[in-house]
Amino acid sequence: MKFELTILGSSSATPIYNRNPTAQLLNINEKFYLIDCGEGTQQQLLRFNCKFQKIDYIFISHLHGDHYLGLVGLISSMNLNGRMKALKLFGPPELKEIIDLQLKHSLTTLRFSLEFKPTSADQFKTLFDNQDVLVETIPLNHRIACTGFKFTLKKRLPKIRMDKVEALQIPPEQRQLIKKGFPFTDSSGKVHQPEDLTLPAEEERSFAYCSDTICDWSYLDQIKCVNLLYHESTFMHDMLARAEETYHTTSLQAGEIAKRAEVKQLLIGHFSARYRELSPILEEARQVFPNTELAIEGQKFEII
Amino acid sequence: MKFELTILGSSSATPIYNRNPTAQLLNINEKFYLIDCGEGTQQQLLRFNCKFQKIDYIFISHLHGDHYLGLVGLISSMNLNGRMKALKLFGPPELKEIIDLQLKHSLTTLRFSLEFKPTSADQFKTLFDNQDVLVETIPLNHRIACTGFKFTLKKRLPKIRMDKVEALQIPPEQRQLIKKGFPFTDSSGKVHQPEDLTLPAEEERSFAYCSDTICDWSYLDQIKCVNLLYHESTFMHDMLARAEETYHTTSLQAGEIAKRAEVKQLLIGHFSARYRELSPILEEARQVFPNTELAIEGQKFEII
Repeated sequence: MKFELTILGSSSATPIYNRNPTAQLLNINEKFYLIDCGEGTQQQLLRFNCKFQKIDYIFISHLHGDHYLGLVGLISSMNLNGRMKALKLFGPPELKEIIDLQLKHSLTTLRFSLEFKPTSADQFKTLFDNQDVLVETIPLNHRIACTGFKFTLKKRLPKIRMDKVEALQIPPEQRQLIKKGFPFTDSSGKVHQPEDLTLPAEEERSFAYCSDTICDWSYLDQIKCVNLLYHESTFMHDMLARAEETYHTTSLQAGEIAKRAEVKQLLIGHFSARYRELSPILEEARQVFPNTELAIEGQKFEII
Repeated sequence: MKFELTILGSSSATPIYNRNPTAQLLNINEKFYLIDCGEGTQQQLLRFNCKFQKIDYIFISHLHGDHYLGLVGLISSMNLNGRMKALKLFGPPELKEIIDLQLKHSLTTLRFSLEFKPTSADQFKTLFDNQDVLVETIPLNHRIACTGFKFTLKKRLPKIRMDKVEALQIPPEQRQLIKKGFPFTDSSGKVHQPEDLTLPAEEERSFAYCSDTICDWSYLDQIKCVNLLYHESTFMHDMLARAEETYHTTSLQAGEIAKRAEVKQLLIGHFSARYRELSPILEEARQVFPNTELAIEGQKFEII
């Protein structure tokens, strides 16, 4: 099942050097989840050929402008382009007030249902949970209320082998039982074990998104062993005092968090405007956690 | 004196085909006036190498998102980049509420003074008037309250000829009098007429900005004989019914307005997403008013 992240913005605070404010698009089996929506996100979606009407869920971490100022524009464009299907929006409670005020003063009535679900930065909480996906908040520690998000792609039933279906003439109603672990008796009376009739099930995979936060070990349990951790890395470690003052993380610390949390891969972003060149930031994180990549706009990361 | 317009965005409603929502930057003698501020305007200012801290005046025509959603991001970036000098903002009264709410929820206190002056869409009004420049509102007719803006670069005193200053030993205190039209008597008693001692004065020049509006002759007097008229031209004339329904103008109508107002040059923009190619729009306006140009992003227009 597809589980792929596209970076739409990687700059902290202000756009610079062709880096846009934060936004990421998560594709889970061709369902699209937008995480944060800095100014210009709709332009970035166009630029990278992402169909924005396919987005059905938006998650806003906090109300600093570089994480949400593209939201009203995106919602307006969805509306102007004829959207009818509901959009689910998760974010701080005050976000609703901001959207409503702007829609009111532009005399806009959305044709689609905007289903707003407030998040709380105080607790780890399930935002939604369906057959395939579980989404939970990760309380972070920033200057204002801020939550990260953890997306878990659940372990699925194994797939049935079509060669076996044909060879043994397995009827459709039996296939679900086999997937669930029941043996199958063929017409000659021979019993086949389910592991001989199926391909191995895809394992659970998870992605944790942590931006913005001071380096804080409090959320370590919640990101433990995720397949991909996106963590902010606003400064390099020589700017530790500035990072702490502004409730941000250094790239060395991001590497340390990834190491302690035993994640598979680390992705760093939210780069300060002081860094034109990003390779020193990457090198610093890799000193601690070698499997680290930069969140570069337009790049896709398969979560494996 | 420099009087130059830079196009930062030319799309109506939604960004598309690398066209951004509306924004224009006016340079009057190295003082910078931003007119409308659609989403992504700060990115466009960076792209075209315009120093956004030099902007001291911002004018917002109305509260449709494509004309102001970049404003809070721009103000935030000005603040984060250490701005201390005041910023004057003119726009509909409700704009203040929108900005204040967003600054409040991001816990942002601006280090500079944001001096907000509400506009009224009901009357032609002077917004400010100094030695060089006069800025007035142009009430337009759109779905929500909307004003255009007229910028007049005033006629200046003639410049004194330095060759004459030297040859006739004209003392400094006499030079202002000569510029104001008084004759000068030199040491030999000979009287010189001021026109012999000065270069011709620069004539008054004006720029009118009209977006968004239905084709409405009510503002014709206010844009009469301007040097440059920017007029929205959202649709081509075969879409007249749609233009009227949405309170927009067709390119044929924009040409007609320019002709009737006897302006020197017409600039059209605010192109609908239905037009990938813009040359048919230009041709249509030129049928009526030949001296027409397209508002293409990054292009500069000297107002002469």
